[in-house]
Amino acid sequence: MTQFVALPPGLSAAEFERALGELRGLLGTDRVVAVADRLRPYQKMMIPAPDEAHVPSGVVMAESVTEVQGILAICNRYRIPLWPTSTGRNFGYGTSSPATRGQLILDLRRMNRILEVDAELGTALVEPGVTYQQLHDYLSERDIPLWLDFPGPGPIVSPLGNTLERGGGNTPYGDHFAHACGMEVVLADGRVLRTGMGSIPNTTSWQVFKYGYGPYLDGIFTQSNFGVVTKLGLWLMPAPPGHRTVLVQFDAEAQLPAAVDTMRRLQLQRVITNVGVMATAVMALSTFKTRAELYDGPGPVPQPVIDAAARDSGIATWNMTFTLYGTPAQIAPNLAIVTEAFEAVGGRVNPDFHDGSQVNELSLASFGILNWVGGGGLAWFAPVSPARGSDAARQAKLARRILGAHGFDYLAAPTLNGRDLHHLIALVYNRNDADEKQRANRCFEQLVHEFAQHGYGLYRVGIDYMDKLAGIYGSVNRDVNRAIKQALDPNGILAPGKSGIHP
Amino acid sequence: MTQFVALPPGLSAAEFERALGELRGLLGTDRVVAVADRLRPYQKMMIPAPDEAHVPSGVVMAESVTEVQGILAICNRYRIPLWPTSTGRNFGYGTSSPATRGQLILDLRRMNRILEVDAELGTALVEPGVTYQQLHDYLSERDIPLWLDFPGPGPIVSPLGNTLERGGGNTPYGDHFAHACGMEVVLADGRVLRTGMGSIPNTTSWQVFKYGYGPYLDGIFTQSNFGVVTKLGLWLMPAPPGHRTVLVQFDAEAQLPAAVDTMRRLQLQRVITNVGVMATAVMALSTFKTRAELYDGPGPVPQPVIDAAARDSGIATWNMTFTLYGTPAQIAPNLAIVTEAFEAVGGRVNPDFHDGSQVNELSLASFGILNWVGGGGLAWFAPVSPARGSDAARQAKLARRILGAHGFDYLAAPTLNGRDLHHLIALVYNRNDADEKQRANRCFEQLVHEFAQHGYGLYRVGIDYMDKLAGIYGSVNRDVNRAIKQALDPNGILAPGKSGIHP
Repeated sequence: MTQFVALPPGLSAAEFERALGELRGLLGTDRVVAVADRLRPYQKMMIPAPDEAHVPSGVVMAESVTEVQGILAICNRYRIPLWPTSTGRNFGYGTSSPATRGQLILDLRRMNRILEVDAELGTALVEPGVTYQQLHDYLSERDIPLWLDFPGPGPIVSPLGNTLERGGGNTPYGDHFAHACGMEVVLADGRVLRTGMGSIPNTTSWQVFKYGYGPYLDGIFTQSNFGVVTKLGLWLMPAPPGHRTVLVQFDAEAQLPAAVDTMRRLQLQRVITNVGVMATAVMALSTFKTRAELYDGPGPVPQPVIDAAARDSGIATWNMTFTLYGTPAQIAPNLAIVTEAFEAVGGRVNPDFHDGSQVNELSLASFGILNWVGGGGLAWFAPVSPARGSDAARQAKLARRILGAHGFDYLAAPTLNGRDLHHLIALVYNRNDADEKQRANRCFEQLVHEFAQHGYGLYRVGIDYMDKLAGIYGSVNRDVNRAIKQALDPNGILAPGKSGIHP
Repeated sequence: MTQFVALPPGLSAAEFERALGELRGLLGTDRVVAVADRLRPYQKMMIPAPDEAHVPSGVVMAESVTEVQGILAICNRYRIPLWPTSTGRNFGYGTSSPATRGQLILDLRRMNRILEVDAELGTALVEPGVTYQQLHDYLSERDIPLWLDFPGPGPIVSPLGNTLERGGGNTPYGDHFAHACGMEVVLADGRVLRTGMGSIPNTTSWQVFKYGYGPYLDGIFTQSNFGVVTKLGLWLMPAPPGHRTVLVQFDAEAQLPAAVDTMRRLQLQRVITNVGVMATAVMALSTFKTRAELYDGPGPVPQPVIDAAARDSGIATWNMTFTLYGTPAQIAPNLAIVTEAFEAVGGRVNPDFHDGSQVNELSLASFGILNWVGGGGLAWFAPVSPARGSDAARQAKLARRILGAHGFDYLAAPTLNGRDLHHLIALVYNRNDADEKQRANRCFEQLVHEFAQHGYGLYRVGIDYMDKLAGIYGSVNRDVNRAIKQALDPNGILAPGKSGIHP
């Protein structure tokens, strides 16, 4: 027994204590944490993983690139694995917990400067600790007419962190990595890489042109452990002259394929330029009702109960939202086209809906989903498929069957984005109930496994499934990732296990 | 003296002959070329580089992935550097010549299968030797309503090759790499990597979702020498219901900044969704006139001569074209917005222009530029800048001064694309005139150097400037590229010198 909650693998308590001493010398005592009490906030996972497998050995808080370099030097010397987090709000994927036990969390939330916003070009340069709320406030205080695109828990999340996880949002800038431009990366050996146009002396174009010259590197620093990203360029959407959010409702499960095919055509024709989110009835209900209010039996809420509650609240079997942006004159022909197209396949079109996430209104409303059962358990299951009706229907059927078999509701929001569909499913469960947690984990396992058998992979996964998912993506991918890892981080100190990449 | 025009570095003629023997064993005699006569077509460069520095040692032609693997095995054994080309039409950047003398060209043009086109999803999967013309014919023969986006010499160019060079075109799908989805890459050791969703068994989503899981790798196989890309997924634009190409003309040089700022705003608001190409008067004239028809003195054609010829042909100082896509009802409000915006800054708007490159009409018209002086010399100089009036004006002034000082015309088509501007300049010269070729090279050198001093880098460069340009992008970038190179191609046999990356 030591005084530590966990030790970095291979280190004795005495060695770890010496390393912490050096880290305290660099950062002061306050920013080096290894006592249980202060570590607890960093251990609050939502996913149904065994807590003990993901206990960090401590936390170090950097305030500058120089400090990040100093921390890396010490961790290289002691071979201490370091798990970087931005604001640590990776909810439903592991929050701030490391993929493997005993890693030292590198907390970057104090590096929270908005370094530049160019109102004309619609660009920003931010540090890891900047939140969407902070950037939103910055823009409104200065009357800069630029919008943000943010994921569910928007206000408290880091644009840099979410982009590195390849997260998404609901405006035309919803693909966050596609709208990032230029990185600063501290490599494991302390060298600082600026990607794209960023490494030209007196560069003019770091935040305007992504690719630079030679291999385009930015992608390899997303969902990976090849470096510590300390600055990220963002593209921000000019506030449109107007917008109109449309709700299209479908009453029958069997209308899903036609809805998806219609949406894909409209998106590929760029009549609709943001994602189309298709909430199931339970998903829509969960934003303002709890499961207990509807039903207190075991298993998933029975379909007749859901249908009745949905009817009472004006909710349909499938509830699709998207937004048309532009002047009234630009919106009018597009609204006519989408209305005709969706009505032709039996959709009910309401052109006066409201969804803050599609029009730059930050809120924590999406947390409502956690109240569905209570107990704080959430794991996102996010398989990718072609945006094709037949695939969507196959996925819906699979998901409903597997979730139901384990007693969970089909809380889903298949999100259409042109050619692809992210079938977002929230596995919500009571994390305080050990049996339910275990059931949730078994359910997740079966979802991953059966979807893979049908040729569907996930775009992102929680820290406890990284190895398994990487396995599904095959050995050559894994070998290539490992080779790059070895080239850029020979001691393997950065986030071992991230995306299944081990030193 | 040997019978070879060049030998791979470090190999004796006898060793090379033995290697060729093994290659003939694999491919047959016809597809292994090392005699001067048959090599000549592969040596036709347009850039003003010394020919002897880029002489290949031979050519091998692969017809399958298995053959590529076999060639790699032999070249690894003999340490023969291998320069992959698709159709070898990298005009103005080196055509098919290798970056360094003695490389064996790996000609992939016989791998020319269109493996799949999904008409619903708007995707294709192609091999390196497929040309835009071939794909165009495939689509029209089957009445598949999908458009292509292609670079200047469209018909004879490979979509795969152009995308790997990060080339561009003039429709809303103009950023070719952004519209590519999924690669198959043969690594130096013969392993086959499928990126993105491609490595999942029975994958459903290889051509619909780019990022896959874990590090997004595709970018590192562009403008690089980390692998041989043998398949590429493409996104194709659904044929729009209609289109209208607009020409906006500005008579005064001083109108450039306002034109650029207006264009940027309209593109960022997505009123205009393709690139805005701004041809200079000389550039516009060069498509149907020769220099000799206008002027036979030395140096650049005098401004009054250009102005007079332009006036006669309805050409202005700046000639900007773009296209509005959609139904007449969708186009009408956008045309009203752009007309008002450009007229407000003094532009003359003609909404009935025609430019085949913006509306899926393949042609070789852009070759007209080579006739400007004759003699087949062309080097593209393509600096990047923010799409900001002040930057555009600074670049135009710089370019005009440097080109003029060396006796060349300002044949330019600054191409605006939202936040960035590629200031495309064609350095056209008589390659048969040794003095003019040398002048062209000195001019290019000064352009690269002075633009870099102002913080402007190039997005792409010819094979003779790769080292210099990589130097401008700094040592950390170079070290990272070299580390990845070492990890993926330890013998350094793939395209040494490409993008300044040497083993």
